[in-house]
Amino acid sequence: SPTSEIMKFGFPSYENIKSRNDYVLSYNRMHRTANWVIEHLTSDKLRQRNADRSESIFTEDLSVPEMFRSTNKDYSKSGFDRGHLAAARNHAHSQDALKDTFYLSNMSPQVGEGFNRGIWNRLEQQVRSLTKVYPDVYVITGPLYLPLVENDGKKYVKYQVIGKNNVSVPTHFFKIVVGDRRKEKNDAKLELQVFLIPNRSIPDDTPLHAFMVPLESVEKASGLTFLDKISRSAIKQGRLTT
Amino acid sequence: SPTSEIMKFGFPSYENIKSRNDYVLSYNRMHRTANWVIEHLTSDKLRQRNADRSESIFTEDLSVPEMFRSTNKDYSKSGFDRGHLAAARNHAHSQDALKDTFYLSNMSPQVGEGFNRGIWNRLEQQVRSLTKVYPDVYVITGPLYLPLVENDGKKYVKYQVIGKNNVSVPTHFFKIVVGDRRKEKNDAKLELQVFLIPNRSIPDDTPLHAFMVPLESVEKASGLTFLDKISRSAIKQGRLTT
Repeated sequence: SPTSEIMKFGFPSYENIKSRNDYVLSYNRMHRTANWVIEHLTSDKLRQRNADRSESIFTEDLSVPEMFRSTNKDYSKSGFDRGHLAAARNHAHSQDALKDTFYLSNMSPQVGEGFNRGIWNRLEQQVRSLTKVYPDVYVITGPLYLPLVENDGKKYVKYQVIGKNNVSVPTHFFKIVVGDRRKEKNDAKLELQVFLIPNRSIPDDTPLHAFMVPLESVEKASGLTFLDKISRSAIKQGRLTT
Repeated sequence: SPTSEIMKFGFPSYENIKSRNDYVLSYNRMHRTANWVIEHLTSDKLRQRNADRSESIFTEDLSVPEMFRSTNKDYSKSGFDRGHLAAARNHAHSQDALKDTFYLSNMSPQVGEGFNRGIWNRLEQQVRSLTKVYPDVYVITGPLYLPLVENDGKKYVKYQVIGKNNVSVPTHFFKIVVGDRRKEKNDAKLELQVFLIPNRSIPDDTPLHAFMVPLESVEKASGLTFLDKISRSAIKQGRLTT
């Protein structure tokens, strides 16, 4: 099944799992946004463009109990974009798969200018281009709420919440990109590049690799464990080949 | 089993469940403290005092992976108490049960003076005294991280984190107290009183009932659902009889 293929490296956690046509998501009822979303990209899938994006509209996720649900009204006039976690363009091979990416459970409040429409978009494009090199690309995306040291020398986590339902505005987003060419190269390791980007406007000329971090940083900050079905010695962390 | 008795009204959530000798806990790996803890109190159990508290020491919970664990060092010099969620005194009928309450997974950073050693202690005492009226008392306790409106008119969640492991300091704690006298009175409803108390020093003369809130407030803020095995029409919300 698509789900078992997408999830072949393990579940980062087991809270409120939602299996969609072409991605799998864990929903956080307190934050009213996902904990993580996992996608599987191939060049074949990306080449097909059978879906019409104009038919897709942002939709409340009725599988989430109403009291824990985010709504379009929460985002309206908030100043934040409804930022896709599983990117719409990654799933345009089928109308149903595309439609699934428009559930509000797949959105997080993102800074628009310079982030969602800037560096985040650039990152999503780069991830898609990796399918030219890696037959299988897996992507794990999620929000983070990171502490900062303030003037009193103490560490605080601080984030905005928007709308009547208090949808959390993440301070950062992570994207874990797995390039798998073990199908063609017998001795190949699973390759891994991890990005951690603050949810704010980033200058256009900032290179993506400036936001590379070790996988362990995202695990420690999120409370999640990634790729636990794979021995760490079979994983190579660093920049993926483009 | 004790667990099925403690959990007879349902699980508030299913993340990292830990069944101890006399309480059940859900652990939050990101916050390094619990999501919730559930206890079952009876006057019989409270009357027995077979355990010696001096033999109990605060202990790292080795069932939590090291990278998500809180340690004594995180609390040391933080200015916060290691506040029990399942109260030690509630489990002094057995050395093993008492010992279990000293796992650091059962602690949250609490303001000491005026909170842990003040109103929170008073609340725990009042809950124990309810066993004189209600044959069965169930207690659900947990931390919360609540938003406040700041000067810019926007809502923010802000909380401190302590130690190398960034243990979250909750802004509030909730306690849901369920009084059950259906054993003796056939037509009795399950009675429910819900407290939400800020994690700060509270004047000694503040009455506990000043912190009563509707159950739904805690559900919406925490992302948890409580008592879902019981029809809401079989529950009476309000002050419990003391």
